[in-house]
Amino acid sequence: MAGATAFAGLPLHGSAAGAGRALRFAQAAPAIDAARLRNRLERLSYHGRNGGTFADGVTRVAYSVPDLTARAWIIDEIKQAEIVPRIDAAGNIFARVGGDPKRPAILFGSHIDSVPNAGNFDGDLGVMASLEVLQAVQAGKIQTRHPLEMVLWAHEESTAFGIGTAASRIVAGDLQAGDMDKVWNGMRRRDAIRRIAGTPDQIETAVRGKGTWHSYVELHIEQGGTLDKAKVPIGIVEGIVAIHRYDVVIDGFANHAGTTPMNERQDAMVAASQLTLAVRDLASRRQGRQVGTVGRFEIEPNSPNVIPGKVMMSVEFRDLSEQVLRELGDQIKARGAAIAKDTRTAIDFTLASTNVPAIATSGVQDAIGRAAEKAALKTMRLPSGAGHDAQQIAKIAPMGMIFVPSVAGISHSPKELTTWEDCARGADVLLKTVLELDQRDSV
Amino acid sequence: MAGATAFAGLPLHGSAAGAGRALRFAQAAPAIDAARLRNRLERLSYHGRNGGTFADGVTRVAYSVPDLTARAWIIDEIKQAEIVPRIDAAGNIFARVGGDPKRPAILFGSHIDSVPNAGNFDGDLGVMASLEVLQAVQAGKIQTRHPLEMVLWAHEESTAFGIGTAASRIVAGDLQAGDMDKVWNGMRRRDAIRRIAGTPDQIETAVRGKGTWHSYVELHIEQGGTLDKAKVPIGIVEGIVAIHRYDVVIDGFANHAGTTPMNERQDAMVAASQLTLAVRDLASRRQGRQVGTVGRFEIEPNSPNVIPGKVMMSVEFRDLSEQVLRELGDQIKARGAAIAKDTRTAIDFTLASTNVPAIATSGVQDAIGRAAEKAALKTMRLPSGAGHDAQQIAKIAPMGMIFVPSVAGISHSPKELTTWEDCARGADVLLKTVLELDQRDSV
Repeated sequence: MAGATAFAGLPLHGSAAGAGRALRFAQAAPAIDAARLRNRLERLSYHGRNGGTFADGVTRVAYSVPDLTARAWIIDEIKQAEIVPRIDAAGNIFARVGGDPKRPAILFGSHIDSVPNAGNFDGDLGVMASLEVLQAVQAGKIQTRHPLEMVLWAHEESTAFGIGTAASRIVAGDLQAGDMDKVWNGMRRRDAIRRIAGTPDQIETAVRGKGTWHSYVELHIEQGGTLDKAKVPIGIVEGIVAIHRYDVVIDGFANHAGTTPMNERQDAMVAASQLTLAVRDLASRRQGRQVGTVGRFEIEPNSPNVIPGKVMMSVEFRDLSEQVLRELGDQIKARGAAIAKDTRTAIDFTLASTNVPAIATSGVQDAIGRAAEKAALKTMRLPSGAGHDAQQIAKIAPMGMIFVPSVAGISHSPKELTTWEDCARGADVLLKTVLELDQRDSV
Repeated sequence: MAGATAFAGLPLHGSAAGAGRALRFAQAAPAIDAARLRNRLERLSYHGRNGGTFADGVTRVAYSVPDLTARAWIIDEIKQAEIVPRIDAAGNIFARVGGDPKRPAILFGSHIDSVPNAGNFDGDLGVMASLEVLQAVQAGKIQTRHPLEMVLWAHEESTAFGIGTAASRIVAGDLQAGDMDKVWNGMRRRDAIRRIAGTPDQIETAVRGKGTWHSYVELHIEQGGTLDKAKVPIGIVEGIVAIHRYDVVIDGFANHAGTTPMNERQDAMVAASQLTLAVRDLASRRQGRQVGTVGRFEIEPNSPNVIPGKVMMSVEFRDLSEQVLRELGDQIKARGAAIAKDTRTAIDFTLASTNVPAIATSGVQDAIGRAAEKAALKTMRLPSGAGHDAQQIAKIAPMGMIFVPSVAGISHSPKELTTWEDCARGADVLLKTVLELDQRDSV
């Protein structure tokens, strides 16, 4: 399965070709081991596999048995590499190599928990690549100026407790009274954290302030199809988008579908259809990468022979710019008012949730750009439409993210796929980025 | 409450003004008693009232306790009028007056069962007006050529057992093996029919063939708003529309609402919105009174942050012409194909149910027209978009329906309202129609 031969032709793969390129440091060019990376991703996939093969994907929800066994296996891998792992109060796993202990560490990592019926790459790639970075530096006997630190964030997906980026959120200082007493699946959060060897009674010790880390870099699959479509192997993330989500209620009048003439109707479904197309139109027509989605939709009374009297729907816009989100919100409300008038319905918008965008630090973006250039890989700058632990750590450290292509843009599905070549390229750029960052006191 | 004074000024109300008009028969002009009609509708409303007042409407589902007590009360009213009621095997209540027993009877009636949280007029008016017709003929000592027969159909609304026009359906010969063994609300249908004094073990005796009745006339509220808007007191029903109902499944691709660019989406909700607007457009743009409705709608996975991958929806067209329905079906499928291509989804149509239209016999329509003319009431011809017992009896007898206005077109709601004046006008036209029909051996 591990098939090192599959990558024998890759210049990235610890070969003379990689070592031959110009590097700014004196030591032998370090390189990640693409075959070992693939092998580890395949072995990780056994923890929570949905079926008999790698292609069946995994279900590895945070705090579940597959999560526990996967964590134990990764801790063992770290130890086998002669690195000492450390678990913080939130259950995050850290492992550090080299550097001047007086300097802040350069942090990089991701997560291994998944949504139900997920794929093998979301989070997993970033964690396994981070261990590769530590081992490459070790193997190359590179003396870095800053300590290099990998992290496995304990709980990223919002499946568990309905909270996304839950573990990095604590580290970034977002910790509320009562957080540990939330119950999900019959389990208190403090008990869940104990299961992964965290110490919930001292959870505040997991909080880290600004200055703790020199910078944070996360390698992740794109989850969208932009890179795959453009055939660009490396994405430089400009930031993680903010989300403005509206709950929309449309009140029409439920009436007999047989006896009510077309021009007498106050059809909430017709109004909702117009609003859905307005969301698409507003998000599509302007320059930029903003997106707009109607994902939740319910109608009443939901009977074939009754004109819908009520629709409850979600409208969500995402963009890096809060100004753009405010404009889109104003525009959809204006469209809604016109639609309400036209359809003789009432349309009510409630801004149900917002979050701020997390902008990737330009210095980290530039370091990724230089790293990709050294690897002779084309890059593209793009926003992340999905949330990531990086958006939490951006609050306390300069942040950047490296994206690699998701085939056909599929994610949160067993069909999620990033080629082994692209996994290796991403890990190589992560390594080179970390070494780029190491040359500067601050970014 | 009964307030006969409220109608003192009405020319319909057994007054000299009514008797003064030209009539084609020799006897004193018979007239319905508008005050008694109102009084009976108000007293009927006690059986199953939703609240303390008439305006609260009723819940009188077939076979329920309010249905039983209302039936007992009506049987008593019939007997008090010195008419002998008869209950058939299906529980339908018949009552006959006068005429040559060798001739087929002229039948007229409606139902008193309701949907949950209903109004006071749907069905009720037709039943109470039919008793008025019998009493008016008795009081006027009119010798009709044909026996006059009122009917209370035992079960019309589809609430009970999910079957609409269930009792008249049996009379018209639509009786399947196993029908009596269907279970609803923990009750077998045969036991339900026993509760209303039917004889389910001889249910086949309820079936009546062609020639049993000279004709059938049903007075009913319109349930739509056409007459109310046009300020026309009497509608002559051209027929009861056919319904073509499609189950539509739209397959897109569920993907991350944050990471999937607008132009990469295969959004089933967007396709469904376009299809919903196409249904409205097709039903609205052509001449005629056809209607088209999307009333049932479900999406998957139904999460604000996921692009809908699947939509299941109903598309229903109603019209008197099956040709029009076939054309609308072809047109929406063509629109669906274009939408599927445009949105990169798959749209599948299944014709889930159809029924044939029930055309009102022109001779009965004309009799209603002459009757309204004699009452000096304006008429309008229109289709019935709702189903009625008349559509079953049309299979075995010449059929016609008289509609009276529904204020604002509201029905199946406590807000359902037909003014007392319009109730009286409808009953008067029913009486005059029956007497018109009586003059012809066949229509």
